[in-house]
Amino acid sequence: MPPVAAMQVSIAGYDGKRLQLHAPLSHHINDKGCAFGGSLASMMTLASWGVVSLGIEQADLRAEVFVADSQIRYLAPLFADLDVHAELAPDADWRSFLTTLRERGRARTALIARALLPEGGVATEFTARYVAIAKP
Amino acid sequence: MPPVAAMQVSIAGYDGKRLQLHAPLSHHINDKGCAFGGSLASMMTLASWGVVSLGIEQADLRAEVFVADSQIRYLAPLFADLDVHAELAPDADWRSFLTTLRERGRARTALIARALLPEGGVATEFTARYVAIAKP
Repeated sequence: MPPVAAMQVSIAGYDGKRLQLHAPLSHHINDKGCAFGGSLASMMTLASWGVVSLGIEQADLRAEVFVADSQIRYLAPLFADLDVHAELAPDADWRSFLTTLRERGRARTALIARALLPEGGVATEFTARYVAIAKP
Repeated sequence: MPPVAAMQVSIAGYDGKRLQLHAPLSHHINDKGCAFGGSLASMMTLASWGVVSLGIEQADLRAEVFVADSQIRYLAPLFADLDVHAELAPDADWRSFLTTLRERGRARTALIARALLPEGGVATEFTARYVAIAKP
């Protein structure tokens, strides 16, 4: 995907549930010397898409995954590389998501992602809903 | 700004209130052949930042402008170049924003941005709040 190549994103970890992405600040720096809010939005959107897509793949299903809506709170400026992690929202039921996708060909789930401050704490918090549509 | 250069964004119009940005789909295309949600988030975040920054400049003030929070609804996939416009939210009071920025050195305003479908209608809708902090 060209936008992802331009972002210089790499996968920093995946344990089957939580996906961690990394990108250098130099590619995402704004006029104030910290990470551009749009880049953080893009990274968290990508990481959450990855969580849903990888989870569907692990279940031996095939689906297109779309973001349906998202909300971001920018809590602190980030003057370091972008370290983002994403996972299912605490109230998401993955088993029921897969059952619905299998039975109805379409399912929706909630995600949460964060960009981390190097000194500990959270720079940005992202919540979103994603829709998967089974491939024929 | 490196992320903006990578996005290949250009200014398509500015009438003193509404800022229009354009970017080629080829740089923002996803695995499904439409615009990546993260790219749209990034463009709308940038366009709204531009509206606030340009408005402050027009008022002969100097301030750093940050996005504080944002909400996006993805209404339809976009299979064309990214055309985004941003402006103050209908309920935003720009005069009072400038007065507060002058008097307190800090002010907040609401923005709205949209990515347009080529056939008419809206692909994505973005609402956000931005904070300006006066430069000494």
